[in-house]
Amino acid sequence: MRYVSFRRTDGTASYGRIEGDQIVDLGAAPGAPVDLKSAIAAQALASLSGKARVALADALLLPVIPNPGKILCVGHNYESHRQETGRAKVAHPSIFTRFADTLVADGQPIVRPRASTDLDYEAELAVVIGRGGRAIAAGDALDHVAGYACFNDASVRDWQWHTTQFAPGKNFPATGGFGPWLVSPDEAGDLLGVRVVSRLNGTVMQDQPVGEMIFSIADIIAYVSAFTPLSPGDVIATGTPGGVGAKRQPPVWMKAGDRIEIDIGPIGTLTNRIIDEQ
Amino acid sequence: MRYVSFRRTDGTASYGRIEGDQIVDLGAAPGAPVDLKSAIAAQALASLSGKARVALADALLLPVIPNPGKILCVGHNYESHRQETGRAKVAHPSIFTRFADTLVADGQPIVRPRASTDLDYEAELAVVIGRGGRAIAAGDALDHVAGYACFNDASVRDWQWHTTQFAPGKNFPATGGFGPWLVSPDEAGDLLGVRVVSRLNGTVMQDQPVGEMIFSIADIIAYVSAFTPLSPGDVIATGTPGGVGAKRQPPVWMKAGDRIEIDIGPIGTLTNRIIDEQ
Repeated sequence: MRYVSFRRTDGTASYGRIEGDQIVDLGAAPGAPVDLKSAIAAQALASLSGKARVALADALLLPVIPNPGKILCVGHNYESHRQETGRAKVAHPSIFTRFADTLVADGQPIVRPRASTDLDYEAELAVVIGRGGRAIAAGDALDHVAGYACFNDASVRDWQWHTTQFAPGKNFPATGGFGPWLVSPDEAGDLLGVRVVSRLNGTVMQDQPVGEMIFSIADIIAYVSAFTPLSPGDVIATGTPGGVGAKRQPPVWMKAGDRIEIDIGPIGTLTNRIIDEQ
Repeated sequence: MRYVSFRRTDGTASYGRIEGDQIVDLGAAPGAPVDLKSAIAAQALASLSGKARVALADALLLPVIPNPGKILCVGHNYESHRQETGRAKVAHPSIFTRFADTLVADGQPIVRPRASTDLDYEAELAVVIGRGGRAIAAGDALDHVAGYACFNDASVRDWQWHTTQFAPGKNFPATGGFGPWLVSPDEAGDLLGVRVVSRLNGTVMQDQPVGEMIFSIADIIAYVSAFTPLSPGDVIATGTPGGVGAKRQPPVWMKAGDRIEIDIGPIGTLTNRIIDEQ
């Protein structure tokens, strides 16, 4: 199944299940949880049904989870990207965080800030937590996954590199993408062979299979939950393949008018245009 | 004025103004905002009054702001600490983040996790944002401050140093302290000469004046708000002086039964006992 968060034509926010070219408005069902995160937490998604339908083409999508409690990101989790960044091999995943206001939905503009021209893409597979927990064993980790989505961990590189800590370059508002939808694990299937691709104005920039992650999805969930409790709707972005714009000669930066796509096969394609901050 | 978030004897959460040895329960006033963050956002603190009073000694304090939207921390912001950590001089503040569930109130236990013995204190002055904003000029920054509080940016050092990114070591639950109260800027007065002190079981471990920060409070607010919008109740921990346990020979780690105090003169003293994770 695929699930979206969206805004109805009357401006109110809801969430639903995709059937064909329509969204079944699950949030409109009597007694339904208020948002997708709450529906995940209530383990209600599979049993919810709704009569109201919205054409997917008419809906204004919101980020898959508009209000996650925690967004954790993994750095340098593909060998090709570790090598291009010159980072040392590490025994643990490199973890940093983003605030929710850094993320926009599929179809919404990514904003290049006035403060920098060094805006870079990062194609990533995002994991959305279904069942929370602490110190989750790797062997149990996939049971805690509500589903998967495309994620653009786009980065303002000069600000990322002001110091050792990535937070500034990863937290300008509306610089990342998260969408279009959540794909349940059964529909996602075996992801190891699925390729994580970015295309900038149609040109492939990154293209590597999920199975080439240094730390697997299960290992990441185990590591992260060892230090912080995970809750339903929390998001983990699992790292980007080699081919980022910053490490090209000359560097490739995203600029107003560019179209960046994150394509992860069965997980969908996240498309955003770049605009300049006004 | 000094303000606290606290739990009443009936278990409900509220906030109030300290008068002598009592808390005036501002949250009990008709139409009062629901919590201290909301009262700050409504710019209502100065005008709120209440009839209900609670003895400060009887109140269970909560973290100063129990539910901040963003918690940003500055690394290596005193020259003595930069030198002891061997970090390069940088032109910008080093910024990382904590989740709210990492912080406990004055009087509550700090929890040493099972995963590590390397639990270290960090005495810091915390700034609570009053008026939000983006790209705040340094010259205007102090107008955006609701007040100050003591902060213990306590750290699980081995996890902090797993990779370049500090997040894991800074985000174990209940490993930091934030209290006892918010001190308004007029009551705080000129902070430059005020000393940021930590005492472990009564022994002074860190002791340096606020005025010796590398980046001033105003500069930090300007830098942070350049990349992320600040909102009322957001918290910025402004860095710790030299003298951390990790850099002593031999290292000093906090263990069950220890008492750690963060004493910042007119801002108050934050006291926490260490317990082991159960």
